[in-house]
This record gives sequence, C-alpha cells and structure tokens, in this order.
Amino acid sequence: MIEEALRVRRLPERAHYDRATVHSIFDDALICHVGFAQGEQPFVIPTIHARVRDVLYLHGSRASRTLGVLRDGVPVCVTATIVDDVVLARSVFHHSMNYRSVVALGIASEVEGMEKLRALRAIAEHVAPGRWDDVRPPSEKELRATSVLRLPLDRVSAKVRTGPPKDDEEDLDLPVWTGVLPLRTVALEPVADERAAGMKAPAYLRPERESIRGGRGGS
Amino acid sequence: MIEEALRVRRLPERAHYDRATVHSIFDDALICHVGFAQGEQPFVIPTIHARVRDVLYLHGSRASRTLGVLRDGVPVCVTATIVDDVVLARSVFHHSMNYRSVVALGIASEVEGMEKLRALRAIAEHVAPGRWDDVRPPSEKELRATSVLRLPLDRVSAKVRTGPPKDDEEDLDLPVWTGVLPLRTVALEPVADERAAGMKAPAYLRPERESIRGGRGGS
Repeated sequence: MIEEALRVRRLPERAHYDRATVHSIFDDALICHVGFAQGEQPFVIPTIHARVRDVLYLHGSRASRTLGVLRDGVPVCVTATIVDDVVLARSVFHHSMNYRSVVALGIASEVEGMEKLRALRAIAEHVAPGRWDDVRPPSEKELRATSVLRLPLDRVSAKVRTGPPKDDEEDLDLPVWTGVLPLRTVALEPVADERAAGMKAPAYLRPERESIRGGRGGS
Repeated sequence: MIEEALRVRRLPERAHYDRATVHSIFDDALICHVGFAQGEQPFVIPTIHARVRDVLYLHGSRASRTLGVLRDGVPVCVTATIVDDVVLARSVFHHSMNYRSVVALGIASEVEGMEKLRALRAIAEHVAPGRWDDVRPPSEKELRATSVLRLPLDRVSAKVRTGPPKDDEEDLDLPVWTGVLPLRTVALEPVADERAAGMKAPAYLRPERESIRGGRGGS
C-alpha cells in the first residue's frame, strides 16, 4: 500500500515505487532540492546529497538555517529531478519532457562519529568520484563545523516519463517534425587554479569519462 | 529592506536581491522546483516555468494535485538552481560548487484569457524557442484542461557562487590539483519520431546552437 501523500495521482502509469528506480535517480542526480515549512511558509533549498543503502545523507554548515530547521525534526521533502529529453509533439498541448524524479518524505536526524565520516565521504564521492583519497581529510574542527543529516528512504515515490511524443490521432498528418531533443550534462575540460597551473588534472576529472555522476542533466 | 524569510544568512556575500540577477537565473534554468505544504508536510515538485517581466508562470493539468493546492492560495516557494562548476579544493572541507539559485516566495493565482495564452506561449518558448509557431495551437478544450498560475516576482532572493576554490593558507603547498570542473547541459542530435523520420529537424533544435535555454545545467 502506498500512503496517500506519496501516491502519484496524475498519470499513474509514470509512477514507480520500487527501491531500484528510486535509488538510481538519487544516484544519477547531482543535486537535490530540500523542502521544509516554517509555519505556513514552505522553503525549497538546493543541496548535494549521497545515498548509501536505504539512507539519503545531506550535509552543510552547522550554522545553516536549513540544517538547523531540519535538526529540529520537522517533516521534510527531498526531491531530485533529471531531465533527459524535451519531447516535441505536433500540438503545443502534447509537448512534454522525458524526466526522472523522485520524492522522499520523512524526518531527518543528525549523525555523528563513523557514520558522519562515511556520509561525508559518500557525498564527496557522489560529486567527484575518486577525489576523497587525493585531498586533506576533514579536521576535528571542520567536522564540528559540519552537520550531517540522515533521511531513511522508506517513504519514497518516483515519476518517470520516457519515449516519443503522444499526438492526437487527428494531428498525425500535420507536416511538423516531431521527436525528442536529448539533453545531457557534460563536464568540460577542468580549469586549473593558478597555483595548480603546471599540474595535470587527475583522471577522474577528465571529460572523456562517459559522464560525471549526475551526468544526465541532474538537478 | 529584505524581509527575514528571504535574507541570505549563510555566506551573505553570495546574496543578490536585484531584479536582473533573479530574472536571469529563472530564464537560464530549464526547470524549477515548487514547494508547498499540506498541514506540516512540505512537498517539492519539479515543473517548467517562464518568466515574463516581473511574473513567473507555471502550468499543468487542471487535474494536477500541485496546481489544485496552489490555486487554493497557499504560500508557495519556487526555486531554480543552475550548477556551473564543481569546485575542487585541497581539503575535503573546502570543496564546493559554483551555482546560481533563486528563491521566490508568494501566493500564486490562476490566470485566464489572453494572459493565459501568452503565458503558455512563454512556457513553450522557454523550453524550445521557435517551436510555438510550427505546431498546432491549443484548442478550447485543451485550454480548459490546462491551468496557468502567475506568481509575482516581488519576494525574491538569489545566491550565487563563482570563482576558484578557497583553500586554507596552510594547505596551499599540498601537492593536489585544484580548480573547477565546468558542467554544461547540452542538446544532442534531435531524434525523430517514426513518422517524422524523413524530415529535417528545425534549426531551433540543432545542437550547434550555442546552448538551449537552460543550457548551463538548469535544474
């Protein structure tokens, strides 16, 4: 049974509630958007994340307003969206997007110790796989200044559209090009900082990699 | 005076409240995320949008849950985010992203008549500039099935990071490559629908265009 808040009502044929679909969208999306309410006012804030097994981790400065509100245990909604294609139909009405989006509801809680360190590593590796081992790890002071939250991924739903435009029968003979325009997020050549100008960028940053994490239009 | 809900408190040097910055982020972002609360539970839903002067337009099926809630006049938060670069520092702690994000708060209201039609055109052209004039315009029935909402852009703030990593003084001699990895959303070759297989894709869809709207990692 899907709880009502998570059930996809519009176009239910696009709904997915299985773990594999939900996890893959969080894994492919570079960033997510976190929603919380203060009184009646909702706020939606972009951030990066990482998924480890059935948990989504978020992090930020201990001084961040968003993380402070979340630490208070308010209900949260975390949404990640990837746009794969613009879908071009013969009528304005049937224009659409091919996309993958996932919504996770729940209450986040702060983690410490080894789980915190593992989560920070997962977040770093989500954005730049291979980077963690090359750079200075966090100091005790930096760890204290950072807050890491865990959101269990047990209240989730995904919505996915794929495929060509769906035109009305009576529009099929209109002399209009139809199809999809694929969009992809690609990494360009790394740009070295002044002091690193003579160094070769590490292999994990080279654009010839098939894609970066979040490489398919992650948002 | 910036109202408290909109004031950027963390890293206020990244804050922008001017119209030009706010507008350009909404214009460059392909999609946005709409936040609203039902009781204590926030929801964050992806959608496309268009900005016309000082107004942001959203649209969807009249049957959509999100649009139904918004039509009831609840407070809303619309956020658009563009990731420009991954920022790679010498320490894990100073890793960051170069990004542009904008938050708009307010109450949305439904529009009809000429404003509705102009808004639908602006939304279509936001995604695929040049497309509207090529395809069948909306019928009366399609217009009735579609809801268009306006959100005045008078309660807004933007947050922008640009530039290289900011390492700690004592890390500057670590033998680590540092710099930024630029991310861009690009359009690939259009893929024709079966029935349009013999037709040439219109010029406005060709990837040699410098970028599509939202072409810089819009999310």
